[in-house]
Amino acid sequence: MSYHYDETIDGPLVTHDKAAVVTQLQARVPDLLILHEQEDLRPFECDGLAAYRTTPMLVALPERTDQVQALLRFASEQRIPVVARGSGTGLSGGALPLEKGILLVMSRFNRILELDPEACTARVQPGVRNLAISQAAAPHGLYYAPDPSSQIACSIGGNVAENAGGIHCLKYGLTVNNILKLEILTIDGEHLTLGSEALDAPGFDLLALFTGSEGMLGIVVEVTVKLLTKPQSAKVLLASFDNVGKAGAAVAQIIGAGVIPGGLEMMDNLAIRAAEDFIHAGYPVDAEAILLCEVDGVESDVREDCECVEALLRSAGATEVRLAKDEAERQRFWAGRKNAFPAVGRISPDYYCMDGTIPRRELPGVLKGIAELSAEYGLQVANVFHAGDGNMHPLILFDANAPGETERAEQIGARILELCVAVGGNITGEHGVGREKINQMCVQFNSDELKVFHALKAAFDPEGLLNPGKNIPTLHRCAEFGSMHVHHGKLPFPELERF
Amino acid sequence: MSYHYDETIDGPLVTHDKAAVVTQLQARVPDLLILHEQEDLRPFECDGLAAYRTTPMLVALPERTDQVQALLRFASEQRIPVVARGSGTGLSGGALPLEKGILLVMSRFNRILELDPEACTARVQPGVRNLAISQAAAPHGLYYAPDPSSQIACSIGGNVAENAGGIHCLKYGLTVNNILKLEILTIDGEHLTLGSEALDAPGFDLLALFTGSEGMLGIVVEVTVKLLTKPQSAKVLLASFDNVGKAGAAVAQIIGAGVIPGGLEMMDNLAIRAAEDFIHAGYPVDAEAILLCEVDGVESDVREDCECVEALLRSAGATEVRLAKDEAERQRFWAGRKNAFPAVGRISPDYYCMDGTIPRRELPGVLKGIAELSAEYGLQVANVFHAGDGNMHPLILFDANAPGETERAEQIGARILELCVAVGGNITGEHGVGREKINQMCVQFNSDELKVFHALKAAFDPEGLLNPGKNIPTLHRCAEFGSMHVHHGKLPFPELERF
Repeated sequence: MSYHYDETIDGPLVTHDKAAVVTQLQARVPDLLILHEQEDLRPFECDGLAAYRTTPMLVALPERTDQVQALLRFASEQRIPVVARGSGTGLSGGALPLEKGILLVMSRFNRILELDPEACTARVQPGVRNLAISQAAAPHGLYYAPDPSSQIACSIGGNVAENAGGIHCLKYGLTVNNILKLEILTIDGEHLTLGSEALDAPGFDLLALFTGSEGMLGIVVEVTVKLLTKPQSAKVLLASFDNVGKAGAAVAQIIGAGVIPGGLEMMDNLAIRAAEDFIHAGYPVDAEAILLCEVDGVESDVREDCECVEALLRSAGATEVRLAKDEAERQRFWAGRKNAFPAVGRISPDYYCMDGTIPRRELPGVLKGIAELSAEYGLQVANVFHAGDGNMHPLILFDANAPGETERAEQIGARILELCVAVGGNITGEHGVGREKINQMCVQFNSDELKVFHALKAAFDPEGLLNPGKNIPTLHRCAEFGSMHVHHGKLPFPELERF
Repeated sequence: MSYHYDETIDGPLVTHDKAAVVTQLQARVPDLLILHEQEDLRPFECDGLAAYRTTPMLVALPERTDQVQALLRFASEQRIPVVARGSGTGLSGGALPLEKGILLVMSRFNRILELDPEACTARVQPGVRNLAISQAAAPHGLYYAPDPSSQIACSIGGNVAENAGGIHCLKYGLTVNNILKLEILTIDGEHLTLGSEALDAPGFDLLALFTGSEGMLGIVVEVTVKLLTKPQSAKVLLASFDNVGKAGAAVAQIIGAGVIPGGLEMMDNLAIRAAEDFIHAGYPVDAEAILLCEVDGVESDVREDCECVEALLRSAGATEVRLAKDEAERQRFWAGRKNAFPAVGRISPDYYCMDGTIPRRELPGVLKGIAELSAEYGLQVANVFHAGDGNMHPLILFDANAPGETERAEQIGARILELCVAVGGNITGEHGVGREKINQMCVQFNSDELKVFHALKAAFDPEGLLNPGKNIPTLHRCAEFGSMHVHHGKLPFPELERF
């Protein structure tokens, strides 16, 4: 597996004289903060996917739009690739630098420009942290709904780039459903406004096209988000199951009954035990699976929904259903879930977190498939996920120091994603493709579809200078990957043959 | 105002020998139903915007995907433009034919292919009527949420092309928020799958890009929609105001309080009187404005929301608030609103329906601006609209037989849309740009933004054969329009100067 940009399959890049670039860029944008010494660059060599590391040619830390504009114009003229980075919490290597490129760090764009409690909107700079928006809105009884686990640190600009989700996106939507307007700069330094504060802007939906485009189409310099009123009440039910299939079926029944929970999360036995050991959340350690179902809204509505969900859980075969008896217990139930990743980190030297999505009805079958792959590869897999969305996070446990385990972990990870695709799902739900899943894009899409992606990319960035080698694979890469990947004319899952 | 495709400003089209085209196309797709006699073409010369009429070169009525594919390949090779049409209920001339083009009528694609009550999805052909989906889902307690007024007749394919809304889209979103997957054909006959049944497909968001693209990017041959559970209960409140500004302010307060009504509609005095005369809905004919607010959900929740909304309406200065006492009165309240357009048709020989959107906080100011324009042009304007969304439908009353009135109606319509843009709104909410608002797109977007639209168009359809002359104006058209439009270097509203 290649962690670095590979010019033979990702396309050639121009080699520049670093010293000359630094001098010229500094002359062009005199008050721009530029880092270029080796020791200054080290903190930026990876994002949240620390297994992938590359030292950038230089790091730029602008604080004004005109600086970004001048930098982009310079990069465009000189044909220097630009990788944008927010807080660097991304889990797919989307902000992995290029040795031959500029890393454009937007973290100094950290001001909330306007908060309008009547219109329920906030206009913020891209480096503002996700949670900081909700904190600023709290005095007005408002909050910003998408809540990725990294919300204390991740930036709204990065959220836009990745179309970030979170526990609450089942009910309240992804980033794309919670933003109104973006101010962006193209690689040529053109300033475009995408979307508007009013409903449904005419022309093509550039706001949605841009959201989740992983830094390939332009640089966000301002975001207008929607704010929601905080729900009056929220309750959590914890249901135990003696079988993961039954828990999966219960999820489909809750959604099918028309209840839209604020959150609906599943954990399997390995994840339950790891979390309980770490957090003492009160989880049933002998359960094969648990579901955590939060309902929120006005008091009376929450009460009724709780009764409805409890009845559904019992009829789906739950061995026990517990309502968090107070706010402290509710917080404990969630703390176990939210700390499941570090908890798994305590029982295994290393783990690899996947992020596939599947249609909800496929949950039981895919969980069975993952168990079979776990046996085949001899690696344990803990399952923790946004069950209501069909967004799975299998955690593959391995030891990087044991010979061959890293490779086996990568292989089983790829197989799990391909299983997701085979049942009509996707290789990523909320973590993005980035550098990590670039090869699996060749499984997800055919060459006609990839050609459309490339044509759209060219519409914004004809020279391919923004974040090359991420998100959308070259057709050449897919040809290479396909020739490695297809054995005896068969893809690893029979269902995949239709792709 | 030009009703027809103008080759000098919309781009040249190749002229074909019609008889030869018919013969060749029939030879190529032998079982394709083709209409080409003048009397057979007449029913297709306009869509719901009947003021714009053009007879197409020929009409094709395929019933299978392979026929559409063969037709598109033929059109692509011969460079014949193709305009797609669903049920022809569109209000912006988006399905207006071209004299030199093929009109591709998708109404025979009218089968519901699959309905999955557990997954809450339906897979349907594009010619299926919007309401037919809800009717098929009703036995399972489900429905399809977007409900344009034309829902009895309009097709889901047309809904996708226009990103259709409706009374319920305030709470449940537009078409783009209620579909999961599209099967489309490009102008070259390539088959692409956009979106998926699982959450958030990777790569660029082609599903959102395609939705609302008005037939410019490809032809939809299959749509997978989301189905929602029918709310247990729905109640309607009718509030009277002695001032439209107060009614506008009440809207902002309801939304600001965190209540998301199932529908929140406003009518002004002229609309109230016209509707009451026609429907006898029980509206207060001396009110300057009424608000109709529907809350839906589980029984107890609806009760609480009703109390909350009533208190807000009274504190916002409502002179009277009435809760529909039973289902019959609820239906009557809505019948008045739903028949407001034909009701206005009874009091004026002709009317012209606009469709601008504005940020909700701008409602009072824009209503005042419309009243001033009404006085300036000497034409009455009735206001009926989706207040919660800020989606306005001013109805301009005029008499096409009175010299100059049609032109004045068009002028005031354009001024109203420009006023919407000036306050941060859009020239269309749910009716689309089509042919009708092609010039106002030059007010909405600058040339950098239009260039991006053209580049995206070219990514799908480099020859510009799909629905040319609609939705996205040529830069040449904007230059022409600008030179007509800007007087003494000033746009008609001072606020517009920043555009």
